[in-house]
Amino acid sequence: MSLLVVGSVAYDGTETPFGKRDRVPGGSATFLSLSASFFTNPVHLIGIVGKDYAAEDIQRFEKRGIDLEGLQRDDSGDTFYYASKYSYDLNHRESLQTDLNVFERFDPVLTDVAKKANVVALGNIEPRLQLRVLDQVEKPKFVAMDTMNFWIEGWNEQLKETIARVDMLVVNDSEARELTGEHSLLKAAEVIFTMGPKHLVIKKGEHGALLLTDGELFSAPAYPIVDIFDPTGAGDAFLGGFLGWLSYTDNFSKDNMRRAVIFGSVMASFTVEEFGPERLDNLTNDEIQERYYEFQALSEIPDPQH
Amino acid sequence: MSLLVVGSVAYDGTETPFGKRDRVPGGSATFLSLSASFFTNPVHLIGIVGKDYAAEDIQRFEKRGIDLEGLQRDDSGDTFYYASKYSYDLNHRESLQTDLNVFERFDPVLTDVAKKANVVALGNIEPRLQLRVLDQVEKPKFVAMDTMNFWIEGWNEQLKETIARVDMLVVNDSEARELTGEHSLLKAAEVIFTMGPKHLVIKKGEHGALLLTDGELFSAPAYPIVDIFDPTGAGDAFLGGFLGWLSYTDNFSKDNMRRAVIFGSVMASFTVEEFGPERLDNLTNDEIQERYYEFQALSEIPDPQH
Repeated sequence: MSLLVVGSVAYDGTETPFGKRDRVPGGSATFLSLSASFFTNPVHLIGIVGKDYAAEDIQRFEKRGIDLEGLQRDDSGDTFYYASKYSYDLNHRESLQTDLNVFERFDPVLTDVAKKANVVALGNIEPRLQLRVLDQVEKPKFVAMDTMNFWIEGWNEQLKETIARVDMLVVNDSEARELTGEHSLLKAAEVIFTMGPKHLVIKKGEHGALLLTDGELFSAPAYPIVDIFDPTGAGDAFLGGFLGWLSYTDNFSKDNMRRAVIFGSVMASFTVEEFGPERLDNLTNDEIQERYYEFQALSEIPDPQH
Repeated sequence: MSLLVVGSVAYDGTETPFGKRDRVPGGSATFLSLSASFFTNPVHLIGIVGKDYAAEDIQRFEKRGIDLEGLQRDDSGDTFYYASKYSYDLNHRESLQTDLNVFERFDPVLTDVAKKANVVALGNIEPRLQLRVLDQVEKPKFVAMDTMNFWIEGWNEQLKETIARVDMLVVNDSEARELTGEHSLLKAAEVIFTMGPKHLVIKKGEHGALLLTDGELFSAPAYPIVDIFDPTGAGDAFLGGFLGWLSYTDNFSKDNMRRAVIFGSVMASFTVEEFGPERLDNLTNDEIQERYYEFQALSEIPDPQH
């Protein structure tokens, strides 16, 4: 079993209440693939970097066994660069600088092995590029996509065409509301199901996540973290863990999707403990498993007989 | 085992996106005692009403077996009246009118049986009155208090004196932040524990509730409700269910407190389905139990072995 990941590979300039860093590896495909690599193998990374992309950042992927055959290198320009600053409560992120650079010319081309992946992760990029990927894959069992308010606002038609072709949409609560015009998340979910997907994850940040699948609702708690160091990549790490687990197990039952939500939440909770993907560099499988059990303990409801 | 409830008994004028009602029975003691009456018996209600308080609203309490010996009637004025309007997303409530009426002269006097209650519920009223109750009780096993931003802002010293004398504080997330000056709820909890209480519940509305007790965190989901009809009394119904269960079981273990959180959440979820306490008029024990199981199903995390 293998996972196909498409998305952005970037350098981020990030300021949080805990510090400031420039040129930290970022982008949706970076967090997606690194996170998923703890569960399934190989992960096929489809993306593009520029002439400034450092050898050590390539090695970060290689160390995790990620297949980079589909990672294009364009020496005519620099890697996608994005700078932003988080508010003191981390609920707001202000964009300071966006240089698309070589990403502007990104055309995802799938290698033959990548086309055969059982699970496909469409990271948050232009819906047209997500469609380009779907046009090349060979019968994946499960396709999930992420998106963001930028595409909801300006690329609604393309976005809906893409949404119609995936098994699962993953959005945060404000995106679900914006996409559907419904304030109630349950009503928003009903609208999204009419668009095509059979499964939906609504990420609620510090309040956890909801999985809606086949008339069943699963409410996952958030892991209690006193200090969120850098929220960047949390959503992508979530999706990487979720889909990495599904790809590895090749099991798409409701129960297994609940496990996937928790593994996704586990990966997100680790990612925010350090800047960029740094925490993933030294993460162990034992730590992942231990935190899974912590999630179970956190939300276990005893039977009512005391 | 019996529960002592002190708080306001009021008539509410309420406007929500689903309609408008005037003179609906309200007040913290109303929801607390009605909700608790599904679990423990008797519930001793300590409060005050005016000459306009209707016989049918007295009967509502009597039908539920609530002890009204401590409910004072002051014929020199009307019952506490509070009018408010909720925003379309129910996240904001605008006060329109507050007539304290006879409540201004409220001095809680405990009957002899009420003094012997094993559990005490201090509803959201002036901290000085909550202290007056604590000065009269005889060794209750568990005392919990609610409060609100009004007392946090203007009556901080009295409030802290009260907090120092209770076993559990119950607040919503914004109140926890305002009381402590900490944005992180975990840090806010640490500060609150230094004030005296051993147990803390933080209510997060549509995101559920957190129970912090003895170094352990329990995250309870919110029940999925498409249309919240009237949020009034949800927090009091929560606390009534919570303390009603503790009083009935007389068991203050961590596991049993988790059950109490879920029974509290169950009662809150029913209460918001209709205006004021109307849903509680026709609620059955079977419905309560069934919804408890729904909460379990909603948040159950399967073991990681698939």
